[in-house]
Amino acid sequence: MVSKNQLKLIKSLHQKKYRNEHGLFFVEGLKTVKELLNSDLNLFELYATKQYSGDFLELEIHDITENDLKKISALRQPSGVLAVFQMPKTRKVDFGNWVMVLDDVRDPGNLGAIIRLCDWFGIEHIVCSNETVDVFNPKVLQATMGSIARVNVVYQDLEPFLAKASLPVYGTYMQGASIYKEDFPKSGVLIMGNEANGIAPKLKANIDKSVTIPQFGNLTAESLNVATATAIVLSEIRSNS
Amino acid sequence: MVSKNQLKLIKSLHQKKYRNEHGLFFVEGLKTVKELLNSDLNLFELYATKQYSGDFLELEIHDITENDLKKISALRQPSGVLAVFQMPKTRKVDFGNWVMVLDDVRDPGNLGAIIRLCDWFGIEHIVCSNETVDVFNPKVLQATMGSIARVNVVYQDLEPFLAKASLPVYGTYMQGASIYKEDFPKSGVLIMGNEANGIAPKLKANIDKSVTIPQFGNLTAESLNVATATAIVLSEIRSNS
Repeated sequence: MVSKNQLKLIKSLHQKKYRNEHGLFFVEGLKTVKELLNSDLNLFELYATKQYSGDFLELEIHDITENDLKKISALRQPSGVLAVFQMPKTRKVDFGNWVMVLDDVRDPGNLGAIIRLCDWFGIEHIVCSNETVDVFNPKVLQATMGSIARVNVVYQDLEPFLAKASLPVYGTYMQGASIYKEDFPKSGVLIMGNEANGIAPKLKANIDKSVTIPQFGNLTAESLNVATATAIVLSEIRSNS
Repeated sequence: MVSKNQLKLIKSLHQKKYRNEHGLFFVEGLKTVKELLNSDLNLFELYATKQYSGDFLELEIHDITENDLKKISALRQPSGVLAVFQMPKTRKVDFGNWVMVLDDVRDPGNLGAIIRLCDWFGIEHIVCSNETVDVFNPKVLQATMGSIARVNVVYQDLEPFLAKASLPVYGTYMQGASIYKEDFPKSGVLIMGNEANGIAPKLKANIDKSVTIPQFGNLTAESLNVATATAIVLSEIRSNS
């Protein structure tokens, strides 16, 4: 039921180059697929193994064998459902709320977790440096769950973006003012940096305030993972602003 | 320089069964290995490719080829350094501080991130249900960085443990009292649950207070990842107790 060309197309969508060329991306798993079907995203094609065909009664499904699914899945254990969606148009960043800026976050799981956190904390716009991992990377999408449908992720050169930002810009560093003592405003820009190197020095001039997550106990842990650090800073911003 | 038996031993350490049988585990990467060498852990054997042999001048190194390292590494791109350590003896859980309890956390990256968070927030003891992923799983160790040397992780049946706990027990749920309004005590027990199912209902009787992380914005995100949720709750506990 599934042609070689279809398999070839989906396989190509593992690569950013072809995702951009086709304007398509794919997600897997019943839960995530259903969540995206209920969003504003436009479905391109839906693939399901027999076991799941009853879950999408009103949609045109391409029946796929587990064997074929294995060939195109990004998962070691494919979950039986794969949907190809059209890439949404990015929206203009709205400065009426907090805006998340990511400088060179490389790990797909981290970007996925940060998108999910932004969704949780009501932050709609994420501006990523061009070196940040692609949001339509299958591993990112696996970690975002359905949040990708609600959070606007754009890629651009951060220096001009920050230079134009009309909000106070907070950079998260290993040293800085304690986030627990900071009076965060109702809206602002929060920058999180690369997993190994933090925020690029060239952005320093665009940052109004350096903040940090104080360590407790023996001061032995060297740093926090960028996703867990983002969780902590966003929680402070939302509970104290 | 590396015998077949050595390779076989390290390969066996990918499995919990053999780690326990030999009382050994391995970590990879210059940074993590150096951190563990500086800890109380006992080194069993150290393997390094030529490129890294100068990094361990005072230690006996087994030279290993990149090809051999690939055979035993848990990484897709081995990092050139692999060290086998003796499993530390677990310590008795000390109730003088906050104690973290994990009920069936299955994802290695999540457990690794939680160990790192506990280290950051000065929590020394983690009690895991027997179903929680093994702390010496290579993927867990990859995510903990060096924190494994400082945090005591024990496995046991949670019901009798919680029944004996002399501290207030907080369970993190999707519904409960807001963590932002809670006056956390100086010491207590915090339970985080399984990625898909949360805390097992059978533990409910042992929980003194259910707490939750309030959602902001449109209330669309379904849940937070357990590692980012742990980050948020620990941050609140430490900044407000």
